[in-house]
Amino acid sequence: MTLKMGVVGTGAIGREHIERITKRISGAEIVALSDIHQENAEQIIRDFKLDAQFFATDAELIAADVDAVIVSSWGPAHEETVLKAIEAGKYVFCEKPLATTAEGCKRIIDAEMKQGKRLLQVGFMRRYDAGYQMLKQALDAKEIGEPLMLSCQHFNPQVDENYTTDMAVVDTLIHEIDVLHWLVDDDYESIQVFYPKQTKNKLSHLKDPQIVHLVTKSGISIHAEIFVNCGYAYDIQCRVVGEDGILSLPEVSSLGIRKDAKRSENLLMDWKKRFMDAYDNEFNAFINAIEKTGSPSYPTAWDGYVAAVTADAGVKAQQSGEVEKIDLPETPDFYRI
Amino acid sequence: MTLKMGVVGTGAIGREHIERITKRISGAEIVALSDIHQENAEQIIRDFKLDAQFFATDAELIAADVDAVIVSSWGPAHEETVLKAIEAGKYVFCEKPLATTAEGCKRIIDAEMKQGKRLLQVGFMRRYDAGYQMLKQALDAKEIGEPLMLSCQHFNPQVDENYTTDMAVVDTLIHEIDVLHWLVDDDYESIQVFYPKQTKNKLSHLKDPQIVHLVTKSGISIHAEIFVNCGYAYDIQCRVVGEDGILSLPEVSSLGIRKDAKRSENLLMDWKKRFMDAYDNEFNAFINAIEKTGSPSYPTAWDGYVAAVTADAGVKAQQSGEVEKIDLPETPDFYRI
Amino acid sequence: MTLKMGVVGTGAIGREHIERITKRISGAEIVALSDIHQENAEQIIRDFKLDAQFFATDAELIAADVDAVIVSSWGPAHEETVLKAIEAGKYVFCEKPLATTAEGCKRIIDAEMKQGKRLLQVGFMRRYDAGYQMLKQALDAKEIGEPLMLSCQHFNPQVDENYTTDMAVVDTLIHEIDVLHWLVDDDYESIQVFYPKQTKNKLSHLKDPQIVHLVTKSGISIHAEIFVNCGYAYDIQCRVVGEDGILSLPEVSSLGIRKDAKRSENLLMDWKKRFMDAYDNEFNAFINAIEKTGSPSYPTAWDGYVAAVTADAGVKAQQSGEVEKIDLPETPDFYRI
Amino acid sequence: MTLKMGVVGTGAIGREHIERITKRISGAEIVALSDIHQENAEQIIRDFKLDAQFFATDAELIAADVDAVIVSSWGPAHEETVLKAIEAGKYVFCEKPLATTAEGCKRIIDAEMKQGKRLLQVGFMRRYDAGYQMLKQALDAKEIGEPLMLSCQHFNPQVDENYTTDMAVVDTLIHEIDVLHWLVDDDYESIQVFYPKQTKNKLSHLKDPQIVHLVTKSGISIHAEIFVNCGYAYDIQCRVVGEDGILSLPEVSSLGIRKDAKRSENLLMDWKKRFMDAYDNEFNAFINAIEKTGSPSYPTAWDGYVAAVTADAGVKAQQSGEVEKIDLPETPDFYRI
Repeated sequence: MTLKMGVVGTGAIGREHIERITKRISGAEIVALSDIHQENAEQIIRDFKLDAQFFATDAELIAADVDAVIVSSWGPAHEETVLKAIEAGKYVFCEKPLATTAEGCKRIIDAEMKQGKRLLQVGFMRRYDAGYQMLKQALDAKEIGEPLMLSCQHFNPQVDENYTTDMAVVDTLIHEIDVLHWLVDDDYESIQVFYPKQTKNKLSHLKDPQIVHLVTKSGISIHAEIFVNCGYAYDIQCRVVGEDGILSLPEVSSLGIRKDAKRSENLLMDWKKRFMDAYDNEFNAFINAIEKTGSPSYPTAWDGYVAAVTADAGVKAQQSGEVEKIDLPETPDFYRI
Repeated sequence: MTLKMGVVGTGAIGREHIERITKRISGAEIVALSDIHQENAEQIIRDFKLDAQFFATDAELIAADVDAVIVSSWGPAHEETVLKAIEAGKYVFCEKPLATTAEGCKRIIDAEMKQGKRLLQVGFMRRYDAGYQMLKQALDAKEIGEPLMLSCQHFNPQVDENYTTDMAVVDTLIHEIDVLHWLVDDDYESIQVFYPKQTKNKLSHLKDPQIVHLVTKSGISIHAEIFVNCGYAYDIQCRVVGEDGILSLPEVSSLGIRKDAKRSENLLMDWKKRFMDAYDNEFNAFINAIEKTGSPSYPTAWDGYVAAVTADAGVKAQQSGEVEKIDLPETPDFYRI
Repeated sequence: MTLKMGVVGTGAIGREHIERITKRISGAEIVALSDIHQENAEQIIRDFKLDAQFFATDAELIAADVDAVIVSSWGPAHEETVLKAIEAGKYVFCEKPLATTAEGCKRIIDAEMKQGKRLLQVGFMRRYDAGYQMLKQALDAKEIGEPLMLSCQHFNPQVDENYTTDMAVVDTLIHEIDVLHWLVDDDYESIQVFYPKQTKNKLSHLKDPQIVHLVTKSGISIHAEIFVNCGYAYDIQCRVVGEDGILSLPEVSSLGIRKDAKRSENLLMDWKKRFMDAYDNEFNAFINAIEKTGSPSYPTAWDGYVAAVTADAGVKAQQSGEVEKIDLPETPDFYRI
Repeated sequence: MTLKMGVVGTGAIGREHIERITKRISGAEIVALSDIHQENAEQIIRDFKLDAQFFATDAELIAADVDAVIVSSWGPAHEETVLKAIEAGKYVFCEKPLATTAEGCKRIIDAEMKQGKRLLQVGFMRRYDAGYQMLKQALDAKEIGEPLMLSCQHFNPQVDENYTTDMAVVDTLIHEIDVLHWLVDDDYESIQVFYPKQTKNKLSHLKDPQIVHLVTKSGISIHAEIFVNCGYAYDIQCRVVGEDGILSLPEVSSLGIRKDAKRSENLLMDWKKRFMDAYDNEFNAFINAIEKTGSPSYPTAWDGYVAAVTADAGVKAQQSGEVEKIDLPETPDFYRI
């Protein structure tokens, strides 16, 4: 069975997903595209020699002969397209954010539950990174007993002037928010943000670095450093202290070099290279889970909602300097997979 | 364009290639199978829901509507199937060995040159391993100047009683033989084999470990340790000393663990996991190169011939204890890619 | 010149210092001992074949022909002996704590300043650890620009039932308190303590692990994990994030081991081995600084006072759960070295 | 008891040993010096404020009130001074080489055996390096079963024009020669030298790098790379493959650095820093062993002889290109410690 997919939004990330599905992944084909810039979509059809049709609107694309819709348009447009696709009973792969507000995410959850089966997968790719998967597997196997304290680092070499203080939470930390509660199989309880000494290598409107302190319902403490002008590398780290030891994400694979009075290994400067395989894996999981179970894989719409509610509390915490509660109901059974 | 492929030999490795092409790789499909065990081939057709036809003989399969033939039968059968496919002008992906004798490889080369274009790629997958590719790239960029000395280790946890002393060269070292001359872009000049102190963990008929000393035409010295009952892991290492520094293959990616008075990272016990991505990559390269250039990628039939001649000298060196010359003509321009 | 030293308190640590000075260090000799257990002191004289005299009281020992006094008695007795020695104009090497209260430390400072020159060095040995010294040197050289965030781990395999929650600050964290403000050349501003999820491997009266958040006057944020029943090792780590990169303490030197499907290096279980060289170095510094400058080296009595004030605020923070201010006057010029 | 020591030869290394004994080590004092440059010796007496006497000849110094003689003169002068000291029944610490010929070493052995007890220790310091000691301990404990293959690297950044091809064996490899047979508790059987591709960064008269292949009596194979113009560092490595795993010397302790798109640790450029502690330890062992047992520690005169015989065969192998036998009698019981 080959899954027929339509893509709504053919900008940079949409294009990458199209290339992924066309060139590197089996089991799906791109049959429909929609974009506000028609010429953009048509260029992609030519570039990848797609046997695909252009639609002027998301509604028309959803109504066409497609099994699944990839939503990779501008963030604020996600919710509406997702809702239309769900109502039409189509599978959805939605790039983050699921919606720009927690309420929007909630509306999607309600629509999906009304359909009676899970149709949607959110594009938080870290869960499909080989390193995080090893970490998850080792934690689940209780290799270090119960996890007690996590420390993470999300460092970017540099950001441009459009990057604002709140984006440290809603764009950057959002990946840790999604992956960490999955990793320790726990829900968040509270969040606090500290501003340590600031780097000289930043624009004046921005707070950088920032330290985020998350606490889970069972009391696990998460210390996350967000530093988006660190200069030296795109460097993602995650370390879990458990009752019997410590586990850390693998370093990025690199040659051993002994040269110039140093032994060294190269780090990445470009974030795109870090999770390239994870992007492939999340689509493989989407396609295979639909084939096997009739529903896509995780992260679910509920995970998208958790991320939105936590990020909202995080932005509030950035402003208040206080410990902010994260109010989340229990995960519905519908979303337990 | 989708490459129509036929598979001759559907044992363990044939089955893996079929899964690879069907499940993980774009641009090709399996349309024909041949095997001396018909039920085996038909089971695979059912397992992977292939739209493929069974043929009783390689000749019939080659004559059918296939663009390319995967030769994954028993080693001694390779040469004949390859020659038939080349004569029919079909592309060939031939598992190692290309042929069991240097003369057989030479016959394949002659047949291919007669066709006027390269049709064949040999299944030495290491050249497609990300680590070796980083190493090649760094060497080509002269990051450590000219390479002067290499040291390699090819360790297996254990071998069974069918493994004989000569297999250390023709089955195990053969991968180093192929990848190393490519890595340093040089030809071999001589080979010598030493038997150091032997492990107690081996059967009496076997020499283990063995040390191989290869020298290239430009004088690069290669020290390779073959140890197939090392017990502790499947552990492949490669270290290149150059005029300005040292480069080493990356370690296998693994969690950092601090536990039980140790900091550690896991090694692999199963060789299949080590080069899994490399196998995918070699087929991607085969398919994409044919699409782009009309010929497959490396390693070429010439590389298969180099491996066979070098392995022959290696087996002679195992017996003589002497430095054995490796007699190879210049690489024909036809095979320079 | 050989420094004549008297030791007040010949228990475990006193005995080690005596062995150190007698067996491994040049420039000083033990000529006098005092202890409430006379037989203990006399046993040491015999064991190390010392040409040394026993004194029943610290006052008599100080009055004797000694240049310097090592105070290694029970913590609550330190202040009184130190004050007597300073009043007698003798050099003092005082084991931590300098005094059990900030007021006691202040009295020692006043006494020393009255003498017009520094006479005392406190036994915080970490500043003499080769790793911390490399870190200090690199930070002073601005190799990573300004330090912004520190994270530390102070892990012990296990503590006995006498270890109480406040000791996490006054006995364990106290070493980080001393070494970190020296490392970043800054003063503390505030301290907060969090209790993450607790380990099952602890006695019920104890909070373990604990997370301490210190902030310096310039805003540097310090995240310190204290975990005294971590089980797996005595493991001290320190990582400094600066504007241009990250520096970390070296790992403990250990063989590389590839065995049992792991590559590993051993960690220490015994804290005594970790800072053995640092203990030697602090005494070398004491002796050499006196010879060269007429005063001992750092840490000074002021550093002892800083540690006491900070630890007091830390204990308050353990109880309040709030951010507690650390009130410290400017370092007097008298103590700037 | 304080060992009274006289130093014959107060050049660079003599001066270092004097500083070592005076400033960093207990249990010995320098009471006598002899040098062909009297002013040199007298300068040292002033610099270190020694209570020591100058003697015009080694004979006079040996005849004076000294317990032990440090021989740190010019290599060719060693034998004569050593023989005089042994005949006088004095302890001797002799810098390498013990003598410049195997015959010279043999004469020293005969003289020492005639005295009826060991009096001499040779200055091969590597055996006292913490890393080699850990390796020795682990090998003796059979942590990796029987050792089968060793590979070593002895790299210097650069040598000056006085360095000749034979010095790769007699000055550089000599340290591996001494430490490796001790490490595996075995005797050498043969040696062969290969010249791989040569570096452009060397003077024309020199062979560099060189590869040495040593085999022990039990068949252990040793692959040693000597590269004295490697440019990038002073880098000593040793890796032992055993029946159950691999052990490697620890890396030099260094800060972890993440900066400029690299994670790195610094290597040493200056060889003096690499074995500084080992030099201290060898003198501590000399002094303590004499105090405890009446004889110094290892390496013994016999070890000096083994090194000389092996180096002679090595130089022959450099010239012949052949496998050269190393003819050594059994270690006399007199020298088994």
